Amino acid sequence: MLVIGGSASTKLGKKVSNELDCEFASVEKKTFPDGEIYVRISEKVEGEKALVVQSTCYPPNKNYMELFLLLDALNDLNAEKISAFIPYFGYARQDKRFEPGEAVSFKTVAKLIESAGADEIYVMDIHGEKIESGPKVFQIPAFNLTAAPILSKYVAKNYSLEKPVVLAPDEGAKEWARKAGKSIEADWDFMVKKRHGAKKVEITPRELDVKNRDVIILDDIISTGGTMTEAIKILKENGAKTVFACCTHPVLSDNALEKIKNAGAREVIGTDTIPSEVSKVSVAPVIAESYRQ
Amino acid sequence: MLVIGGSASTKLGKKVSNELDCEFASVEKKTFPDGEIYVRISEKVEGEKALVVQSTCYPPNKNYMELFLLLDALNDLNAEKISAFIPYFGYARQDKRFEPGEAVSFKTVAKLIESAGADEIYVMDIHGEKIESGPKVFQIPAFNLTAAPILSKYVAKNYSLEKPVVLAPDEGAKEWARKAGKSIEADWDFMVKKRHGAKKVEITPRELDVKNRDVIILDDIISTGGTMTEAIKILKENGAKTVFACCTHPVLSDNALEKIKNAGAREVIGTDTIPSEVSKVSVAPVIAESYRQ
Repeated sequence: MLVIGGSASTKLGKKVSNELDCEFASVEKKTFPDGEIYVRISEKVEGEKALVVQSTCYPPNKNYMELFLLLDALNDLNAEKISAFIPYFGYARQDKRFEPGEAVSFKTVAKLIESAGADEIYVMDIHGEKIESGPKVFQIPAFNLTAAPILSKYVAKNYSLEKPVVLAPDEGAKEWARKAGKSIEADWDFMVKKRHGAKKVEITPRELDVKNRDVIILDDIISTGGTMTEAIKILKENGAKTVFACCTHPVLSDNALEKIKNAGAREVIGTDTIPSEVSKVSVAPVIAESYRQ
Repeated sequence: MLVIGGSASTKLGKKVSNELDCEFASVEKKTFPDGEIYVRISEKVEGEKALVVQSTCYPPNKNYMELFLLLDALNDLNAEKISAFIPYFGYARQDKRFEPGEAVSFKTVAKLIESAGADEIYVMDIHGEKIESGPKVFQIPAFNLTAAPILSKYVAKNYSLEKPVVLAPDEGAKEWARKAGKSIEADWDFMVKKRHGAKKVEITPRELDVKNRDVIILDDIISTGGTMTEAIKILKENGAKTVFACCTHPVLSDNALEKIKNAGAREVIGTDTIPSEVSKVSVAPVIAESYRQ
Protein backbone atom coordinates (compact mmCIF):
# COMPACT_ATOMS: atom_id res chain seq x y z
CA MET A 1 0.00 0.00 0.00
CA LEU A 2 1.23 3.48 -0.75
CA VAL A 3 -0.03 7.05 -0.69
CA ILE A 4 0.65 9.46 -3.56
CA GLY A 5 0.35 13.17 -2.85
CA GLY A 6 -0.51 15.58 -5.65
CA SER A 7 0.80 19.17 -5.68
CA ALA A 8 -2.30 20.54 -3.98
CA SER A 9 -2.18 18.03 -1.12
CA THR A 10 1.43 17.04 -0.50
CA LYS A 11 1.38 17.76 3.24
CA LEU A 12 -1.98 16.11 3.75
CA GLY A 13 -0.83 13.12 1.72
CA LYS A 14 2.13 12.66 4.06
CA LYS A 15 -0.16 12.82 7.08
CA VAL A 16 -2.45 10.22 5.53
CA SER A 17 0.50 7.89 4.92
CA ASN A 18 1.53 8.34 8.57
CA GLU A 19 -1.98 7.49 9.74
CA LEU A 20 -2.03 4.42 7.51
CA ASP A 21 1.57 3.56 8.44
CA CYS A 22 2.50 3.04 4.80
CA GLU A 23 4.92 4.46 2.28
CA PHE A 24 4.53 7.98 0.90
CA ALA A 25 5.52 7.81 -2.76
CA SER A 26 7.66 10.61 -4.04
CA VAL A 27 6.35 12.10 -7.24
CA GLU A 28 8.50 14.14 -9.58
CA LYS A 29 6.46 17.09 -10.85
CA LYS A 30 7.34 19.70 -13.44
CA THR A 31 5.52 22.43 -15.29
CA PHE A 32 6.93 23.27 -18.72
CA PRO A 33 7.05 26.85 -20.03
CA ASP A 34 4.06 26.07 -22.28
CA GLY A 35 1.98 25.22 -19.19
CA GLU A 36 2.00 21.47 -19.71
CA ILE A 37 2.67 19.40 -16.63
CA TYR A 38 4.71 16.26 -16.11
CA VAL A 39 4.48 13.67 -13.37
CA ARG A 40 6.58 10.66 -12.60
CA ILE A 41 6.05 8.18 -9.78
CA SER A 42 9.43 6.87 -8.72
CA GLU A 43 8.27 4.02 -6.47
CA LYS A 44 7.34 0.58 -7.69
CA VAL A 45 3.54 0.46 -7.74
CA GLU A 46 2.90 -2.80 -9.57
CA GLY A 47 0.57 -4.98 -7.52
CA GLU A 48 0.24 -2.30 -4.81
CA LYS A 49 -2.85 -0.57 -3.52
CA ALA A 50 -2.44 3.12 -4.25
CA LEU A 51 -4.27 6.04 -2.66
CA VAL A 52 -3.90 9.32 -4.55
CA VAL A 53 -4.55 12.45 -2.48
CA GLN A 54 -5.21 15.57 -4.54
CA SER A 55 -7.51 18.50 -3.87
CA THR A 56 -8.84 20.23 -6.95
CA CYS A 57 -8.88 23.68 -5.42
CA TYR A 58 -7.26 26.69 -7.13
CA PRO A 59 -5.94 26.31 -9.81
CA PRO A 60 -8.59 23.64 -10.50
CA ASN A 61 -7.79 22.79 -14.11
CA LYS A 62 -4.11 22.17 -13.42
CA ASN A 63 -4.92 20.18 -10.30
CA TYR A 64 -7.46 18.06 -12.16
CA MET A 65 -5.03 17.40 -15.00
CA GLU A 66 -2.37 16.32 -12.52
CA LEU A 67 -4.90 13.99 -10.88
CA PHE A 68 -5.83 12.47 -14.26
CA LEU A 69 -2.17 11.93 -15.14
CA LEU A 70 -1.42 10.29 -11.78
CA LEU A 71 -4.45 7.98 -12.01
CA ASP A 72 -3.68 6.95 -15.58
CA ALA A 73 -0.02 6.38 -14.78
CA LEU A 74 -0.94 4.14 -11.82
CA ASN A 75 -3.28 2.25 -14.11
CA ASP A 76 -0.53 1.77 -16.70
CA LEU A 77 1.91 0.72 -14.03
CA ASN A 78 -0.47 -2.01 -12.90
CA ALA A 79 -1.34 -0.85 -9.42
CA GLU A 80 -3.67 -3.43 -7.87
CA LYS A 81 -6.33 -0.95 -6.77
CA ILE A 82 -6.44 2.81 -7.31
CA SER A 83 -8.31 5.02 -4.87
CA ALA A 84 -8.69 8.75 -5.39
CA PHE A 85 -9.11 10.95 -2.33
CA ILE A 86 -10.20 14.40 -3.47
CA PRO A 87 -10.50 16.37 -0.23
CA TYR A 88 -11.75 19.54 -1.96
CA PHE A 89 -13.72 18.62 -5.04
CA GLY A 90 -13.64 21.40 -7.62
CA TYR A 91 -16.58 21.86 -9.99
CA ALA A 92 -19.03 20.44 -7.40
CA ARG A 93 -21.03 23.65 -7.63
CA GLN A 94 -22.42 23.00 -11.12
CA ASP A 95 -24.19 19.74 -10.28
CA LYS A 96 -27.17 20.23 -12.56
CA ARG A 97 -28.33 22.19 -15.59
CA PHE A 98 -29.72 25.45 -14.26
CA GLU A 99 -30.07 26.98 -17.74
CA PRO A 100 -30.53 25.13 -21.06
CA GLY A 101 -27.26 24.28 -22.75
CA GLU A 102 -25.04 24.45 -19.69
CA ALA A 103 -22.24 21.97 -19.17
CA VAL A 104 -22.80 20.05 -15.93
CA SER A 105 -19.20 20.19 -14.88
CA PHE A 106 -19.61 18.10 -11.72
CA LYS A 107 -20.79 15.18 -13.83
CA THR A 108 -18.07 15.77 -16.44
CA VAL A 109 -15.18 15.68 -13.99
CA ALA A 110 -16.68 12.65 -12.22
CA LYS A 111 -16.69 10.82 -15.55
CA LEU A 112 -13.13 11.89 -16.32
CA ILE A 113 -11.83 10.73 -12.92
CA GLU A 114 -13.33 7.31 -13.56
CA SER A 115 -12.03 7.01 -17.08
CA ALA A 116 -8.57 8.15 -15.99
CA GLY A 117 -8.42 5.01 -13.87
CA ALA A 118 -9.86 5.43 -10.36
CA ASP A 119 -11.49 2.32 -8.87
CA GLU A 120 -13.09 4.19 -5.98
CA ILE A 121 -13.36 7.75 -4.80
CA TYR A 122 -13.41 9.55 -1.47
CA VAL A 123 -14.57 13.14 -1.03
CA MET A 124 -15.19 15.39 1.98
CA ASP A 125 -18.46 17.13 2.81
CA ILE A 126 -19.99 17.46 -0.61
CA HIS A 127 -23.70 18.14 -0.22
CA GLY A 128 -24.99 14.60 0.22
CA GLU A 129 -27.68 14.64 -2.41
CA LYS A 130 -25.08 15.34 -5.09
CA ILE A 131 -23.40 12.02 -4.43
CA GLU A 132 -26.30 9.84 -3.42
CA SER A 133 -29.55 10.75 -5.09
CA GLY A 134 -30.84 11.05 -8.64
CA PRO A 135 -29.08 9.45 -11.58
CA LYS A 136 -25.82 8.33 -10.05
CA VAL A 137 -22.91 10.64 -10.73
CA PHE A 138 -20.26 8.05 -9.94
CA GLN A 139 -20.37 4.55 -11.37
CA ILE A 140 -17.53 3.47 -9.08
CA PRO A 141 -17.93 3.28 -5.27
CA ALA A 142 -17.96 6.83 -3.87
CA PHE A 143 -17.65 7.79 -0.22
CA ASN A 144 -18.62 11.21 1.09
CA LEU A 145 -16.74 11.68 4.38
CA THR A 146 -17.36 14.44 6.88
CA ALA A 147 -15.07 16.67 8.92
CA ALA A 148 -17.93 17.96 11.10
CA PRO A 149 -17.10 15.89 14.22
CA ILE A 150 -13.37 16.66 14.15
CA LEU A 151 -14.11 20.37 13.82
CA SER A 152 -16.43 20.49 16.84
CA LYS A 153 -14.04 18.27 18.80
CA TYR A 154 -11.21 20.69 18.03
CA VAL A 155 -13.21 23.56 19.56
CA ALA A 156 -14.34 21.49 22.55
CA LYS A 157 -10.78 20.41 23.24
CA ASN A 158 -9.24 23.88 23.03
CA TYR A 159 -11.89 25.91 24.87
CA SER A 160 -14.00 25.22 27.93
CA LEU A 161 -17.37 25.73 26.35
CA GLU A 162 -20.44 26.96 28.22
CA LYS A 163 -23.71 25.26 27.24
CA PRO A 164 -22.34 24.79 23.71
CA VAL A 165 -24.56 24.64 20.67
CA VAL A 166 -23.62 23.65 17.13
CA LEU A 167 -25.43 25.59 14.43
CA ALA A 168 -25.69 25.10 10.71
CA PRO A 169 -26.15 28.41 8.90
CA ASP A 170 -28.94 26.90 6.77
CA GLU A 171 -31.04 23.76 6.50
CA GLY A 172 -28.76 22.33 3.81
CA ALA A 173 -25.99 21.89 6.36
CA LYS A 174 -28.13 20.52 9.21
CA GLU A 175 -26.82 16.94 8.96
CA TRP A 176 -23.32 18.21 9.63
CA ALA A 177 -24.50 20.21 12.65
CA ARG A 178 -26.24 17.13 13.99
CA LYS A 179 -23.14 14.96 13.64
CA ALA A 180 -20.87 17.64 15.07
CA GLY A 181 -23.24 18.26 17.99
CA LYS A 182 -23.57 14.59 18.82
CA SER A 183 -19.83 14.05 18.75
CA ILE A 184 -19.31 16.54 21.60
CA GLU A 185 -22.67 15.88 23.29
CA ALA A 186 -23.90 19.38 22.55
CA ASP A 187 -27.22 20.69 21.35
CA TRP A 188 -27.51 21.40 17.67
CA ASP A 189 -29.81 23.38 15.43
CA PHE A 190 -29.88 25.19 12.10
CA MET A 191 -30.72 28.72 11.06
CA VAL A 192 -33.99 29.44 9.28
CA LYS A 193 -35.51 32.39 7.51
CA LYS A 194 -38.67 33.61 9.21
CA ARG A 195 -40.97 35.97 7.34
CA HIS A 196 -42.68 38.81 9.15
CA GLY A 197 -45.32 40.31 6.86
CA ALA A 198 -44.57 40.94 3.25
CA LYS A 199 -40.99 42.14 3.28
CA LYS A 200 -39.15 41.60 6.53
CA VAL A 201 -37.09 38.44 6.68
CA GLU A 202 -35.46 37.44 9.94
CA ILE A 203 -32.81 34.76 10.12
CA THR A 204 -32.61 32.97 13.47
CA PRO A 205 -31.83 29.59 14.95
CA ARG A 206 -34.86 27.44 14.31
CA GLU A 207 -35.61 26.59 17.96
CA LEU A 208 -32.71 27.04 20.30
CA ASP A 209 -32.05 30.19 22.29
CA VAL A 210 -28.35 31.05 22.03
CA LYS A 211 -28.31 33.65 24.80
CA ASN A 212 -25.18 33.32 26.95
CA ARG A 213 -24.18 30.17 25.13
CA ASP A 214 -21.03 29.34 23.18
CA VAL A 215 -21.88 28.72 19.54
CA ILE A 216 -20.02 26.69 16.95
CA ILE A 217 -21.20 27.62 13.45
CA LEU A 218 -20.45 24.88 11.03
CA ASP A 219 -20.57 25.05 7.26
CA ASP A 220 -19.13 22.97 4.47
CA ILE A 221 -17.34 25.87 2.85
CA ILE A 222 -16.39 29.48 3.50
CA SER A 223 -15.91 31.30 0.18
CA THR A 224 -16.57 35.03 0.34
CA GLY A 225 -17.66 34.66 3.99
CA GLY A 226 -21.04 36.30 3.39
CA THR A 227 -23.17 33.56 4.96
CA MET A 228 -20.84 33.16 7.92
CA THR A 229 -20.58 36.90 8.60
CA GLU A 230 -24.33 37.30 8.59
CA ALA A 231 -24.84 34.33 10.91
CA ILE A 232 -22.27 35.65 13.40
CA LYS A 233 -23.92 39.08 13.52
CA ILE A 234 -27.36 37.57 14.15
CA LEU A 235 -26.07 35.26 16.87
CA LYS A 236 -24.27 38.12 18.57
CA GLU A 237 -27.48 40.18 18.44
CA ASN A 238 -29.27 37.24 20.01
CA GLY A 239 -26.87 37.26 22.94
CA ALA A 240 -24.47 34.44 22.03
CA LYS A 241 -21.39 34.54 24.26
CA THR A 242 -18.67 33.31 21.96
CA VAL A 243 -18.94 32.31 18.32
CA PHE A 244 -16.57 29.93 16.52
CA ALA A 245 -16.67 29.94 12.72
CA CYS A 246 -15.88 26.46 11.41
CA CYS A 247 -15.81 24.96 7.95
CA THR A 248 -14.41 21.98 6.13
CA HIS A 249 -13.19 23.89 3.07
CA PRO A 250 -11.53 27.27 3.76
CA VAL A 251 -11.65 28.77 0.26
CA LEU A 252 -11.51 32.27 1.82
CA SER A 253 -11.69 34.40 -1.29
CA ASP A 254 -11.25 38.16 -1.19
CA ASN A 255 -11.17 39.44 2.40
CA ALA A 256 -13.41 36.70 3.82
CA LEU A 257 -11.21 36.07 6.87
CA GLU A 258 -11.09 39.73 7.87
CA LYS A 259 -14.85 40.10 7.45
CA ILE A 260 -15.59 37.10 9.66
CA LYS A 261 -13.18 38.24 12.35
CA ASN A 262 -14.64 41.74 12.27
CA ALA A 263 -18.12 40.28 12.67
CA GLY A 264 -16.96 38.97 16.03
CA ALA A 265 -15.81 35.36 15.57
CA ARG A 266 -13.53 34.22 18.39
CA GLU A 267 -11.68 31.90 16.01
CA VAL A 268 -11.98 30.78 12.40
CA ILE A 269 -11.24 27.09 11.95
CA GLY A 270 -10.93 25.09 8.75
CA THR A 271 -9.39 21.79 7.71
CA ASP A 272 -6.50 21.01 5.40
CA THR A 273 -8.66 19.99 2.44
CA ILE A 274 -7.44 23.39 1.22
CA PRO A 275 -4.12 24.53 2.69
CA SER A 276 -4.74 27.92 4.37
CA GLU A 277 -3.82 29.91 7.44
CA VAL A 278 -6.93 28.61 9.24
CA SER A 279 -6.32 24.93 8.36
CA LYS A 280 -5.93 23.91 11.99
CA VAL A 281 -7.64 20.52 11.75
CA SER A 282 -6.38 17.69 9.54
CA VAL A 283 -8.76 15.35 7.77
CA ALA A 284 -6.04 12.69 7.60
CA PRO A 285 -7.54 10.54 10.41
CA VAL A 286 -10.97 10.64 8.74
CA ILE A 287 -9.81 9.34 5.37
CA ALA A 288 -7.44 6.85 7.02
CA GLU A 289 -10.25 5.34 9.09
CA SER A 290 -12.57 5.05 6.13
CA TYR A 291 -9.86 3.70 3.81
CA ARG A 292 -8.82 0.99 6.27
CA GLN A 293 -12.30 -0.54 6.30
CA MET B 1 -24.63 20.97 -38.64
CA LEU B 2 -22.96 23.56 -36.45
CA VAL B 3 -19.48 24.61 -35.42
CA ILE B 4 -18.62 25.39 -31.80
CA GLY B 5 -15.52 27.48 -31.14
CA GLY B 6 -13.66 27.14 -27.84
CA SER B 7 -11.83 30.10 -26.26
CA ALA B 8 -8.51 29.17 -27.88
CA SER B 9 -9.97 28.92 -31.38
CA THR B 10 -12.91 31.29 -31.66
CA LYS B 11 -11.68 33.04 -34.82
CA LEU B 12 -10.66 29.80 -36.49
CA GLY B 13 -14.01 28.24 -35.54
CA LYS B 14 -15.83 31.06 -37.30
CA LYS B 15 -13.72 30.56 -40.43
CA VAL B 16 -14.46 26.84 -40.36
CA SER B 17 -18.21 27.52 -40.15
CA ASN B 18 -17.88 29.88 -43.14
CA GLU B 19 -16.05 27.21 -45.12
CA LEU B 20 -18.73 24.66 -44.23
CA ASP B 21 -21.50 27.21 -44.77
CA CYS B 22 -23.13 26.29 -41.47
CA GLU B 23 -24.06 27.97 -38.20
CA PHE B 24 -21.41 29.09 -35.72
CA ALA B 25 -22.83 28.42 -32.27
CA SER B 26 -22.34 31.11 -29.70
CA VAL B 27 -20.93 29.78 -26.45
CA GLU B 28 -21.20 31.66 -23.19
CA LYS B 29 -17.91 31.29 -21.30
CA LYS B 30 -16.98 32.44 -17.82
CA THR B 31 -14.09 31.92 -15.45
CA PHE B 32 -15.00 32.17 -11.76
CA PRO B 33 -12.62 33.76 -9.23
CA ASP B 34 -11.69 30.25 -8.00
CA GLY B 35 -10.45 29.37 -11.49
CA GLU B 36 -13.36 27.12 -12.40
CA ILE B 37 -14.79 27.62 -15.85
CA TYR B 38 -18.34 27.59 -17.11
CA VAL B 39 -19.64 26.99 -20.61
CA ARG B 40 -23.12 27.17 -22.04
CA ILE B 41 -24.13 26.43 -25.62
CA SER B 42 -27.09 28.64 -26.49
CA GLU B 43 -28.06 27.01 -29.78
CA LYS B 44 -30.27 23.95 -30.09
CA VAL B 45 -27.94 21.03 -30.77
CA GLU B 46 -30.31 18.08 -30.42
CA GLY B 47 -30.07 15.89 -33.51
CA GLU B 48 -27.38 18.13 -35.04
CA LYS B 49 -23.87 17.25 -36.16
CA ALA B 50 -21.50 19.32 -34.04
CA LEU B 51 -17.85 20.15 -34.75
CA VAL B 52 -15.96 21.56 -31.74
CA VAL B 53 -12.84 23.56 -32.61
CA GLN B 54 -10.47 24.04 -29.70
CA SER B 55 -6.69 24.19 -29.65
CA THR B 56 -5.09 23.02 -26.42
CA CYS B 57 -2.22 25.47 -26.55
CA TYR B 58 -1.31 27.71 -23.62
CA PRO B 59 -2.91 27.51 -21.06
CA PRO B 60 -3.32 23.79 -21.89
CA ASN B 61 -5.11 22.58 -18.76
CA LYS B 62 -7.79 25.24 -18.95
CA ASN B 63 -8.23 24.70 -22.68
CA TYR B 64 -8.51 20.93 -22.23
CA MET B 65 -11.05 21.34 -19.43
CA GLU B 66 -13.12 23.64 -21.63
CA LEU B 67 -12.96 21.07 -24.43
CA PHE B 68 -14.09 18.28 -22.07
CA LEU B 69 -16.99 20.41 -20.81
CA LEU B 70 -18.11 21.29 -24.35
CA LEU B 71 -17.95 17.67 -25.53
CA ASP B 72 -19.82 16.37 -22.50
CA ALA B 73 -22.47 19.07 -22.80
CA LEU B 74 -23.03 18.23 -26.50
CA ASN B 75 -23.35 14.60 -25.51
CA ASP B 76 -25.93 15.43 -22.83
CA LEU B 77 -27.80 17.66 -25.22
CA ASN B 78 -28.13 14.77 -27.68
CA ALA B 79 -26.09 16.05 -30.59
CA GLU B 80 -26.24 13.45 -33.36
CA LYS B 81 -22.50 13.24 -33.92
CA ILE B 82 -19.71 15.02 -32.06
CA SER B 83 -16.43 15.75 -33.82
CA ALA B 84 -13.47 17.34 -32.05
CA PHE B 85 -11.01 19.38 -34.10
CA ILE B 86 -7.95 20.05 -31.98
CA PRO B 87 -5.71 22.11 -34.28
CA TYR B 88 -2.85 22.28 -31.76
CA PHE B 89 -2.82 19.18 -29.62
CA GLY B 90 -1.25 19.83 -26.22
CA TYR B 91 0.56 17.01 -24.42
CA ALA B 92 1.52 15.36 -27.73
CA ARG B 93 5.18 15.55 -26.70
CA GLN B 94 4.96 12.87 -23.99
CA ASP B 95 3.81 10.06 -26.26
CA LYS B 96 5.68 7.27 -24.53
CA ARG B 97 7.33 6.38 -21.24
CA PHE B 98 10.91 7.62 -21.52
CA GLU B 99 11.66 6.93 -17.83
CA PRO B 100 9.98 4.34 -15.58
CA GLY B 101 6.93 5.69 -13.76
CA GLU B 102 6.18 8.57 -16.11
CA ALA B 103 2.64 9.49 -16.99
CA VAL B 104 2.13 9.18 -20.76
CA SER B 105 0.12 12.35 -21.02
CA PHE B 106 -0.62 12.03 -24.76
CA LYS B 107 -2.42 8.76 -24.09
CA THR B 108 -4.18 10.16 -21.03
CA VAL B 109 -5.66 13.18 -22.78
CA ALA B 110 -6.66 11.03 -25.77
CA LYS B 111 -8.61 8.79 -23.40
CA LEU B 112 -10.22 11.77 -21.68
CA ILE B 113 -11.32 13.33 -24.99
CA GLU B 114 -13.02 10.08 -25.92
CA SER B 115 -14.72 9.60 -22.60
CA ALA B 116 -15.87 13.23 -22.56
CA GLY B 117 -17.93 12.37 -25.62
CA ALA B 118 -16.09 12.82 -28.94
CA ASP B 119 -17.12 10.43 -31.71
CA GLU B 120 -14.18 11.33 -33.95
CA ILE B 121 -11.14 13.53 -33.77
CA TYR B 122 -9.16 15.71 -36.16
CA VAL B 123 -5.66 16.98 -35.44
CA MET B 124 -3.06 18.86 -37.47
CA ASP B 125 0.49 17.70 -38.19
CA ILE B 126 1.11 15.49 -35.21
CA HIS B 127 4.09 13.26 -36.00
CA GLY B 128 2.37 10.50 -37.93
CA GLU B 129 3.66 7.55 -35.99
CA LYS B 130 2.04 8.87 -32.81
CA ILE B 131 -1.39 8.52 -34.31
CA GLU B 132 -0.94 5.52 -36.54
CA SER B 133 1.56 3.01 -35.20
CA GLY B 134 1.93 0.98 -32.05
CA PRO B 135 -0.92 0.29 -29.67
CA LYS B 136 -3.60 2.63 -30.92
CA VAL B 137 -3.90 5.84 -28.95
CA PHE B 138 -7.39 6.64 -30.18
CA GLN B 139 -10.19 4.09 -30.19
CA ILE B 140 -12.41 6.47 -32.16
CA PRO B 141 -11.62 7.46 -35.79
CA ALA B 142 -8.70 9.92 -35.77
CA PHE B 143 -7.53 12.03 -38.69
CA ASN B 144 -4.12 13.66 -38.83
CA LEU B 145 -4.40 16.54 -41.30
CA THR B 146 -1.50 18.54 -42.71
CA ALA B 147 -0.95 22.23 -43.33
CA ALA B 148 2.23 21.62 -45.36
CA PRO B 149 0.69 22.24 -48.83
CA ILE B 150 -1.14 25.42 -47.79
CA LEU B 151 2.06 26.81 -46.27
CA SER B 152 4.16 26.26 -49.40
CA LYS B 153 1.31 27.54 -51.57
CA TYR B 154 1.17 30.72 -49.48
CA VAL B 155 4.86 31.37 -50.18
CA ALA B 156 4.56 30.49 -53.88
CA LYS B 157 1.58 32.81 -54.26
CA ASN B 158 3.15 35.80 -52.51
CA TYR B 159 6.68 35.62 -53.93
CA SER B 160 8.04 34.80 -57.34
CA LEU B 161 10.34 32.00 -56.33
CA GLU B 162 13.53 31.09 -58.14
CA LYS B 163 14.18 27.34 -58.48
CA PRO B 164 12.35 26.79 -55.17
CA VAL B 165 13.14 23.92 -52.84
CA VAL B 166 11.17 22.78 -49.80
CA LEU B 167 13.33 21.48 -46.97
CA ALA B 168 12.45 19.66 -43.77
CA PRO B 169 14.92 20.47 -41.00
CA ASP B 170 15.21 16.78 -40.09
CA GLU B 171 14.16 13.38 -41.37
CA GLY B 172 11.15 13.30 -39.02
CA ALA B 173 9.52 16.05 -41.02
CA LYS B 174 10.34 14.74 -44.52
CA GLU B 175 6.80 13.65 -45.36
CA TRP B 176 5.62 17.21 -44.89
CA ALA B 177 8.39 18.55 -47.13
CA ARG B 178 7.45 16.01 -49.78
CA LYS B 179 3.76 17.02 -49.70
CA ALA B 180 4.55 20.73 -49.62
CA GLY B 181 7.06 20.39 -52.48
CA LYS B 182 4.67 18.38 -54.66
CA SER B 183 1.86 20.88 -54.13
CA ILE B 184 3.90 23.69 -55.73
CA GLU B 185 5.83 21.44 -58.11
CA ALA B 186 9.11 22.20 -56.38
CA ASP B 187 12.03 19.99 -55.40
CA TRP B 188 12.08 18.82 -51.83
CA ASP B 189 14.66 17.39 -49.47
CA PHE B 190 15.44 17.10 -45.78
CA MET B 191 18.45 18.04 -43.69
CA VAL B 192 20.79 15.36 -42.38
CA LYS B 193 23.67 15.21 -39.96
CA LYS B 194 26.89 14.17 -41.67
CA ARG B 195 29.81 13.06 -39.53
CA HIS B 196 33.35 14.03 -40.49
CA GLY B 197 35.75 12.01 -38.36
CA ALA B 198 35.16 11.60 -34.67
CA LYS B 199 33.78 14.95 -33.62
CA LYS B 200 32.74 17.21 -36.43
CA VAL B 201 29.07 17.06 -37.32
CA GLU B 202 27.81 18.92 -40.34
CA ILE B 203 24.13 19.50 -41.00
CA THR B 204 23.25 19.89 -44.67
CA PRO B 205 20.49 19.15 -47.13
CA ARG B 206 20.73 15.45 -47.87
CA GLU B 207 21.20 15.77 -51.64
CA LEU B 208 20.08 19.05 -53.09
CA ASP B 209 22.33 22.01 -53.64
CA VAL B 210 20.58 25.16 -52.41
CA LYS B 211 22.98 27.63 -54.00
CA ASN B 212 21.10 30.60 -55.52
CA ARG B 213 17.78 28.92 -54.81
CA ASP B 214 14.79 30.09 -52.77
CA VAL B 215 14.26 27.77 -49.84
CA ILE B 216 11.09 27.07 -47.86
CA ILE B 217 11.95 25.42 -44.56
CA LEU B 218 8.98 23.56 -43.22
CA ASP B 219 8.55 22.17 -39.72
CA ASP B 220 5.57 21.07 -37.65
CA ILE B 221 6.32 23.41 -34.80
CA ILE B 222 8.51 26.37 -33.90
CA SER B 223 8.99 26.52 -30.13
CA THR B 224 12.22 28.15 -29.03
CA GLY B 225 13.28 28.46 -32.67
CA GLY B 226 16.58 26.65 -32.15
CA THR B 227 16.17 24.12 -34.97
CA MET B 228 14.88 26.73 -37.40
CA THR B 229 17.64 29.25 -36.60
CA GLU B 230 20.35 26.67 -37.11
CA ALA B 231 18.85 25.51 -40.40
CA ILE B 232 18.61 29.06 -41.75
CA LYS B 233 22.24 29.78 -40.90
CA ILE B 234 23.44 26.62 -42.65
CA LEU B 235 21.38 27.29 -45.75
CA LYS B 236 22.64 30.86 -45.93
CA GLU B 237 26.22 29.57 -45.64
CA ASN B 238 25.45 27.17 -48.47
CA GLY B 239 24.43 30.05 -50.70
CA ALA B 240 20.62 29.94 -50.48
CA LYS B 241 19.11 33.10 -51.94
CA THR B 242 16.04 33.61 -49.80
CA VAL B 243 14.85 31.50 -46.88
CA PHE B 244 11.24 31.28 -45.69
CA ALA B 245 10.64 29.81 -42.23
CA CYS B 246 7.31 27.98 -42.16
CA CYS B 247 5.55 25.93 -39.52
CA THR B 248 2.10 24.66 -38.71
CA HIS B 249 2.21 25.49 -35.00
CA PRO B 250 3.80 28.85 -34.10
CA VAL B 251 4.38 28.31 -30.36
CA LEU B 252 7.17 30.92 -30.49
CA SER B 253 8.36 30.83 -26.89
CA ASP B 254 10.91 33.30 -25.53
CA ASN B 255 12.43 35.39 -28.33
CA ALA B 256 12.05 32.73 -31.03
CA LEU B 257 10.71 35.13 -33.64
CA GLU B 258 13.53 37.63 -33.18
CA LYS B 259 16.16 34.87 -33.36
CA ILE B 260 14.76 33.48 -36.60
CA LYS B 261 14.53 36.90 -38.22
CA ASN B 262 18.08 37.72 -37.10
CA ALA B 263 19.31 34.46 -38.65
CA GLY B 264 18.14 35.84 -41.99
CA ALA B 265 14.64 34.52 -42.68
CA ARG B 266 12.81 36.62 -45.25
CA GLU B 267 9.48 35.84 -43.59
CA VAL B 268 8.22 33.65 -40.78
CA ILE B 269 4.90 31.99 -41.59
CA GLY B 270 2.66 29.92 -39.34
CA THR B 271 -0.98 28.88 -39.32
CA ASP B 272 -3.83 29.75 -36.99
CA THR B 273 -3.71 26.47 -35.04
CA ILE B 274 -2.18 28.81 -32.46
CA PRO B 275 -3.20 32.46 -32.82
CA SER B 276 0.02 34.49 -33.20
CA GLU B 277 1.47 37.43 -35.11
CA VAL B 278 2.81 35.04 -37.79
CA SER B 279 -0.51 33.15 -38.21
CA LYS B 280 -0.87 34.19 -41.83
CA VAL B 281 -2.35 30.95 -43.17
CA SER B 282 -5.66 29.53 -41.98
CA VAL B 283 -6.18 25.80 -41.65
CA ALA B 284 -9.95 26.28 -41.99
CA PRO B 285 -10.11 25.01 -45.60
CA VAL B 286 -8.11 21.89 -44.66
CA ILE B 287 -10.44 20.79 -41.85
CA ALA B 288 -13.52 21.79 -43.86
CA GLU B 289 -12.47 19.62 -46.80
CA SER B 290 -11.73 16.64 -44.61
CA TYR B 291 -14.88 17.04 -42.51
CA ARG B 292 -17.14 17.23 -45.56
CA GLN B 293 -16.05 13.81 -46.79
